[in-house]
Amino acid sequence: MSKPHVTQGATQAAIPGQPTEGPLTHEELQLAGRNHSMPLEALREDVTPAGLHYLLIHFDIPHIDLNEWRLTLGGAVNRKLELSLDDIKARDAVTMPVTLECAGNGRALLQPRPLSQPWVLGAVGTAEWTGTPLAPLLEEAGVASDAVELVFTGADSGIQGGVEEPYARSLTIAEAMHPEVMLVYAMNGNPLPPQHGFPLRLLVPGWYGMASVKWLTSIEAVTSRFMGVQQAVAYHYLQGPDGPGLPVTRIRVRSLMVPPGIPDFFTRRRVVDAGPVMLRGRAWSGHGEIERVEVGIDGEWMPAHLEPAQGDFAWRSWSMVWVAKPGDHVLRCRAMDSSGALQASEQVWNYQGIGNNMAQRVEVTVR
Amino acid sequence: MSKPHVTQGATQAAIPGQPTEGPLTHEELQLAGRNHSMPLEALREDVTPAGLHYLLIHFDIPHIDLNEWRLTLGGAVNRKLELSLDDIKARDAVTMPVTLECAGNGRALLQPRPLSQPWVLGAVGTAEWTGTPLAPLLEEAGVASDAVELVFTGADSGIQGGVEEPYARSLTIAEAMHPEVMLVYAMNGNPLPPQHGFPLRLLVPGWYGMASVKWLTSIEAVTSRFMGVQQAVAYHYLQGPDGPGLPVTRIRVRSLMVPPGIPDFFTRRRVVDAGPVMLRGRAWSGHGEIERVEVGIDGEWMPAHLEPAQGDFAWRSWSMVWVAKPGDHVLRCRAMDSSGALQASEQVWNYQGIGNNMAQRVEVTVR
Repeated sequence: MSKPHVTQGATQAAIPGQPTEGPLTHEELQLAGRNHSMPLEALREDVTPAGLHYLLIHFDIPHIDLNEWRLTLGGAVNRKLELSLDDIKARDAVTMPVTLECAGNGRALLQPRPLSQPWVLGAVGTAEWTGTPLAPLLEEAGVASDAVELVFTGADSGIQGGVEEPYARSLTIAEAMHPEVMLVYAMNGNPLPPQHGFPLRLLVPGWYGMASVKWLTSIEAVTSRFMGVQQAVAYHYLQGPDGPGLPVTRIRVRSLMVPPGIPDFFTRRRVVDAGPVMLRGRAWSGHGEIERVEVGIDGEWMPAHLEPAQGDFAWRSWSMVWVAKPGDHVLRCRAMDSSGALQASEQVWNYQGIGNNMAQRVEVTVR
Repeated sequence: MSKPHVTQGATQAAIPGQPTEGPLTHEELQLAGRNHSMPLEALREDVTPAGLHYLLIHFDIPHIDLNEWRLTLGGAVNRKLELSLDDIKARDAVTMPVTLECAGNGRALLQPRPLSQPWVLGAVGTAEWTGTPLAPLLEEAGVASDAVELVFTGADSGIQGGVEEPYARSLTIAEAMHPEVMLVYAMNGNPLPPQHGFPLRLLVPGWYGMASVKWLTSIEAVTSRFMGVQQAVAYHYLQGPDGPGLPVTRIRVRSLMVPPGIPDFFTRRRVVDAGPVMLRGRAWSGHGEIERVEVGIDGEWMPAHLEPAQGDFAWRSWSMVWVAKPGDHVLRCRAMDSSGALQASEQVWNYQGIGNNMAQRVEVTVR
């Protein structure tokens, strides 16, 4: 791994990481145009079609030559492994639907607004991922007894918070040994697209997306905690600039609905015809099963019908018939998971704008 | 086609269509998150991978049941046609690389800034499109001698400029008879993804993307000019709010480069190592062949090497070695096409923010 390097000379109109009450910045617009969300009408699909799944790419999509690419599994292990993609594909394969969400989903709705990727609500998607479980590979390599973490490093590099590093994240040995943690090479039955980590990425089901390192090139067992920027600085629940705060791990419970009716192009405000309207959406959590979804119509909460879950780590479909009467209305939805966590109706603020699972709010005009 | 319907009651923090010197609005952020651009590092690919091609969806992605979907070709024709997707696939098939670009690409860089989809620079992409030429179908239907235009209507509907309409655009009979105009059902060898017009879209090579109507359901020959919002109001070169102005048609000459080096996550500013750097990019035009690309280094323009064009309607690759010396530099690129059109160095403003092909500007720090 290259040594962290502090850069000079970047002119910054806005200071990333400092929350603001000010208007949207050009930097946020650039990020919004690169890192797209899932249009909420795609919530109607069990599996998000290719190209509609949300994307967060911290730096650039790296160009990887499959002939030269190898995954190394080294550091504090008994036997260092070096694997080609064919080696990995020759191992036991598992296909599983998994919902991934960006930890910053909902950040742009917070006031004050942390300056980073300005997600509104669509930083989510569910894919059928195919790969091989990580645990047997770790057993083959023989992780040393004094190893405390595994560091997963991608082929993408850049500067964040003044530090130059490749994108890298760690998991404790126990977290990495969970049977659902996989090295995946296919998405919805096709090779990983370049933007989702070709040829191989880590997949940590139930966790926010930052854990599922894309363009994976090395796994290193280390004997002290990894202190890279993406692990020790970014992705923490904080109330102010001073750390350390709590590290971000599993996905907080959330539900979203397909906005009903038709939109206005510019405002995205919805117009709905009066009469029975089927409201539909999805709910998910990394902390347990979805046990209840409620729809709020002008402040009155009613239970929605729940379909069976698509898998242990995938979203659950819900629906409710609403008899729409002419006038302006506010629709909301909120879910509760088996840990007892319920989405809040008002914002619960934090300094990096992480895990904002405040209940969605959709304004509609019924005619 | 449903009757235009003026809606009431939409609260609008910003007035779409009115240029502003003010900050970015929440409405623009919502659009930027839905309608993604192509990350500029994808310019290194001859064909843009699925999911990286730019997308502009005016309303919602419609859900289409292929069993019920039919294309009708009617209006002022001798023989009305109704075709299933299998009928269309049974016809002569052509596969062709075509570069599509949104007419609003570069809009967010204009000052004052027209309020609409706030594209920075990446609203472009090149796909291998497969479909059947339109002209033989029109000959089969027998367009009436008094028909002046063909109206192409999609399955997507919404409100724009206060008017409710399905998305629809027209071409003159002569424009529609061009041999390269196609009905396409595949993109890069796979069925059209939902967001690119499944199951069928029009493709008008050389024109800005608004002409290539997605989710096509009907083609209607009409005996007077079509006056729908997307044809008669949107997509015009104007200097103020009063029309009619010139309708937007073919793509203006443009070149873009892959930003060299590595980015800062938030500002996207580039850091480059000193020494020889291969600058690469693409250039395209709907008005003729690309004849020249020049790279500007701190204001001094030098010719780039051009590869052969990929096709009559696809971008052309260019490259130039730059010997980067430590310090801050401004890189630009500009192309000239066989019509003699050259990209301007400064903005050429218009009221809707259309066709802003001002030469790209990339600031880099060389270390």
